Amino acid sequence: MTYQYLSNLPLEEAREKYLHALRERGLLFKREIVPTANALERISAAAVYARISAPHYNACAMDGVALDSTLTFGASERAPVRIASDQFAWVNTGDPLPAGCDAVVMVEDVIQGKGFITLYSPAVPWENIRQIGEDISAGDMIIPSFTVITPAIIGALLAAGVMEVNVITRPLVGIIPTGDEVIPLTDHPQPGQIIEFNSSIFSAMLAQWGCNSKIYPIAKDSQPAIEEALTTAIEVCDAVILLAGSSAGKKDFAVAAMRGVGEVIVHGIAIKPGKPAILALAEDPARGIVVPLLGLPGYPVSGMLVMENLFRPVMDLLTGRPSASGEQCEVEISRRLTSSLKYHEFIRATLGKVGGKVVAVPLNRGAGVVSSMVKADGIIQVPQNVEGYEQGDRVTVQLLRATAEIERALVVTGSHDPLLDEVADILRREWPAYRVASSHVGSMGGILAVKRGEAHLGGIHLLDEATGEYNIPFLRRFFPQGGVVLVECVQRTQGLMVKPGNPLAIHSLADLVRAGYVNRQKGSGTRILFDYLLKQEGIDPAGIRGYGREEYTHSSVAASIAAGSADAGLGIYSAARIFGLDFIPIYEEQYDLLLLEEALELEIVKRLLELLRGEEFSNRLARLGGYTLVNPGEMRKWN
Amino acid sequence: MTYQYLSNLPLEEAREKYLHALRERGLLFKREIVPTANALERISAAAVYARISAPHYNACAMDGVALDSTLTFGASERAPVRIASDQFAWVNTGDPLPAGCDAVVMVEDVIQGKGFITLYSPAVPWENIRQIGEDISAGDMIIPSFTVITPAIIGALLAAGVMEVNVITRPLVGIIPTGDEVIPLTDHPQPGQIIEFNSSIFSAMLAQWGCNSKIYPIAKDSQPAIEEALTTAIEVCDAVILLAGSSAGKKDFAVAAMRGVGEVIVHGIAIKPGKPAILALAEDPARGIVVPLLGLPGYPVSGMLVMENLFRPVMDLLTGRPSASGEQCEVEISRRLTSSLKYHEFIRATLGKVGGKVVAVPLNRGAGVVSSMVKADGIIQVPQNVEGYEQGDRVTVQLLRATAEIERALVVTGSHDPLLDEVADILRREWPAYRVASSHVGSMGGILAVKRGEAHLGGIHLLDEATGEYNIPFLRRFFPQGGVVLVECVQRTQGLMVKPGNPLAIHSLADLVRAGYVNRQKGSGTRILFDYLLKQEGIDPAGIRGYGREEYTHSSVAASIAAGSADAGLGIYSAARIFGLDFIPIYEEQYDLLLLEEALELEIVKRLLELLRGEEFSNRLARLGGYTLVNPGEMRKWN
Repeated sequence: MTYQYLSNLPLEEAREKYLHALRERGLLFKREIVPTANALERISAAAVYARISAPHYNACAMDGVALDSTLTFGASERAPVRIASDQFAWVNTGDPLPAGCDAVVMVEDVIQGKGFITLYSPAVPWENIRQIGEDISAGDMIIPSFTVITPAIIGALLAAGVMEVNVITRPLVGIIPTGDEVIPLTDHPQPGQIIEFNSSIFSAMLAQWGCNSKIYPIAKDSQPAIEEALTTAIEVCDAVILLAGSSAGKKDFAVAAMRGVGEVIVHGIAIKPGKPAILALAEDPARGIVVPLLGLPGYPVSGMLVMENLFRPVMDLLTGRPSASGEQCEVEISRRLTSSLKYHEFIRATLGKVGGKVVAVPLNRGAGVVSSMVKADGIIQVPQNVEGYEQGDRVTVQLLRATAEIERALVVTGSHDPLLDEVADILRREWPAYRVASSHVGSMGGILAVKRGEAHLGGIHLLDEATGEYNIPFLRRFFPQGGVVLVECVQRTQGLMVKPGNPLAIHSLADLVRAGYVNRQKGSGTRILFDYLLKQEGIDPAGIRGYGREEYTHSSVAASIAAGSADAGLGIYSAARIFGLDFIPIYEEQYDLLLLEEALELEIVKRLLELLRGEEFSNRLARLGGYTLVNPGEMRKWN
Repeated sequence: MTYQYLSNLPLEEAREKYLHALRERGLLFKREIVPTANALERISAAAVYARISAPHYNACAMDGVALDSTLTFGASERAPVRIASDQFAWVNTGDPLPAGCDAVVMVEDVIQGKGFITLYSPAVPWENIRQIGEDISAGDMIIPSFTVITPAIIGALLAAGVMEVNVITRPLVGIIPTGDEVIPLTDHPQPGQIIEFNSSIFSAMLAQWGCNSKIYPIAKDSQPAIEEALTTAIEVCDAVILLAGSSAGKKDFAVAAMRGVGEVIVHGIAIKPGKPAILALAEDPARGIVVPLLGLPGYPVSGMLVMENLFRPVMDLLTGRPSASGEQCEVEISRRLTSSLKYHEFIRATLGKVGGKVVAVPLNRGAGVVSSMVKADGIIQVPQNVEGYEQGDRVTVQLLRATAEIERALVVTGSHDPLLDEVADILRREWPAYRVASSHVGSMGGILAVKRGEAHLGGIHLLDEATGEYNIPFLRRFFPQGGVVLVECVQRTQGLMVKPGNPLAIHSLADLVRAGYVNRQKGSGTRILFDYLLKQEGIDPAGIRGYGREEYTHSSVAASIAAGSADAGLGIYSAARIFGLDFIPIYEEQYDLLLLEEALELEIVKRLLELLRGEEFSNRLARLGGYTLVNPGEMRKWN
């Protein structure tokens, strides 16, 4: 049922079709006059010409005397020239050049006598004078149309007597959230209530594009309610965005409502995420203008990508901004990247420079995972009809950060522990220019990433079943040639997190048969530990309900238990504490940092190793709880 | 006298000394709490942690039925499973997962019967469910300290129940203009009055750095007046900038006033322009803080460069912004660039990509030429103790524009005619992403620039004395190997511009002996024409007063005559018209465009040649006056 009425128009075709329809109806920016001094970052609507010259008079450019240069011709050390006081004038920098004068002699070169001065060299005509119009002449074009006004332009315009400037009006964009289950911003939502934060994201994006926005009240899920909201917005806004309900499900009224008030140009675009978007338009007869209408899918990431790739060119027409193609960069893909042939896919990725080359680590592709847009440094685009990329392929990435910033990132991956975030924060407070780019792929993922040269370092806690030893056996196996170092970090307590008060009276792994369990993903150190412990105690995983249910972090396991959808899970103390869970200690494990040897040369890594031994770090660990520090920052011998 | 009390501290030393002094006195940013939805582009003052998880409940991710997956195990095409209606629940996307359920089956896979449904495949546990905390778990660090808040971060914070965020307060910077001759913004200044536009430039720069500013009334040139203004500002501002009077001349009171209210750390820095800058500080006892004080030289370009290179790092401490090192690029210098050994010199330059390489054309170095900062695409830095660069040397340029924008520029040089600005504006209105970067170096300069591959095209009007023919003889001489094309542009009338009413009754060149003349620079087509005409008529240049006075454009010649500092000058009609001068036609000349052959391939050049034949161009020329169009846009045969 869902999607059945949607087209699957290729990205470029959808964009062109929409822009064409809007241009055909005469979509155009508006203009207004603003004081030049307030015009920073506005866009000129027309060429601007100088009204007066700058300087607007012939100005002395030095402190000294102004005179007619012919009086000084022939002056030399041997034949100095005397000039009587009625034939020159003392002037300061900025004074107008007195009539009859064509040169200024610097005060340093003037020997004063009584009623006269003496010069030892001739004055050059028009020397030390800022001639009228030297900077700008009246009538000069200072800036052409569609120029972003900079501080220097403000200065030049004001110097040229242009007190007001004709700029493009910032368009007003209406944002209408919809949905019966959607509620205004709150930190106490009930299950089933969806916090309406998308409008704040889109309003912020619009602000960055030079638009104003107006967020309307949440409209209920019905065609008349949405039509009414649209009609109200179309009367005052230059464009309107409708949030959610853009698909073809039974509670999706956006497309019908848009048909009711205007014309739908495209419904359904071959992009992922973002397919069920609507590109439409309406006329506002009162103002005689066409108003673009955008219907966005409800998931924030879908919405952001549709905004950027389909709506931004429309807004560029209304703001007059030179369309920002954005910076791009080529990266080598170190792992296979699959994608659907049916869609142009946008894959968020963290980026960093490791061993001289930029590496991209793809992030969670979920359309609802807004945190992936926080972590993303770039977007990998996989065009429609491309099935993905093989290891070693070079792909183009749209950058979301400046190249310099990407190159300064410390790339951290592997097992996640909250202490890594604390380390990142300590580093950043000291060196705001540096940044830690981290992704969570489990301990084994961390080892593989470091091996592939995709990360500077990874957190690992891997138990070797044969020896009961942590980490070192894995290094011997994966890095027979060396090239990495192992840095001791912390000992931490793994335990069973259970509901407050421990209602199921769980005290050991054996008790788990009575509980609903929530597991960690394969390859994570915690999963390996769990399997090791089950084996030790002879417990069959098949007997544990929820063994197959996987979460990617300690805290998401804790969150599931706190919410009541599971009874127990293995994890670290700090996660249990945050969610108010009971904690049954099970095992002390070694959490270390695996580093590329070459990363030891980086300033930020040196500082990181130092801070592991510092007070700030141990204070923060004490607040988190569940850690023991033995020799943090020490290199562990392993080969 | 001037400068005698100034030090000449190297740039880095001055900057470090000042930052050190400020840090020692505890210079620090302030914090404030703002609503998250309004926090766009603010900087986090501390790490921010999630208050609730997102999703905050286990949510159905599809429309369909929710059930206990164990009920469906074993279902297949051949052995479908029936599930009674009390064992499942219909759900919509976003609904909370009903108790006892651990899977959602998509509506498309559900066959409805009466009182039951049929499934042909088993449900996978936790499939089609957005698990609690899947995006963000309560307690997760969402952003570390000193993070610029983006739209995605706003979304993530709100999703995580963070309704307010602790950010760094935008510092308030006081700007105090000074000077007896300085007047508020006006378009009707009198000679000797200096329009105070610097404060608007610096206020705009501060806004771009994330600071608020307050512009104080203009203070008079006296130590008590300036001290009083400083004291007032120090009581409320986080930093104070004093404009002009920073040198050591007899009207320069800034340094004494700063000593009166605080402590001067540096006075005089080995940079050009910008040497007479003051880096100082004061304490505000009421607030218990240190307030940085900056004394800027009066010329706008000096001020901007001192702001950028010495004060921005200070403001970064107060705003918490990761210090923007700015993009850089390497360019080959195509002409010798001299610089003083004594100073670190900042040379403004236009940049563009010609024939595959980025070329830099240095602009007017005058400290008062604010228009050079409008034209500049980058700043070439010549370090102290470097005498300049030889042709072919590679130098680093600080970019003022995005690389992509620089690469899209059409580089135009040579003889300036207002029609080139009109052409640039017409192109830009059609293609806002493209830009014309032009500099004026005269016709001969244009030929040399095109020959060196520094420009795509140049405007030229060069009269060959031997044949009386325009342009073609010069191409034969300078481009024996070809590689360029000549495009016909306009015929234009050169004439004598004289004061309104022609008080000196000038009707021909011979009459110039009675007048004060203002000439054009050597190598300009107009200068060559003037010399040719003088020779033709047997007039001795030595007999013309002002023959040695040189201006760089038609309009600056006209401005000099309009201001009364000269009586006559040779130039084009449109310049005379703008300044209300009388115009005595003397000669019809051919103004053509010289293009690199390879530039013909550029889209923007194709469009340019087309527009020369269009109506818009001829309409604009008609408004300017003094032009005749014969075959604009035609290639002229020359080899």
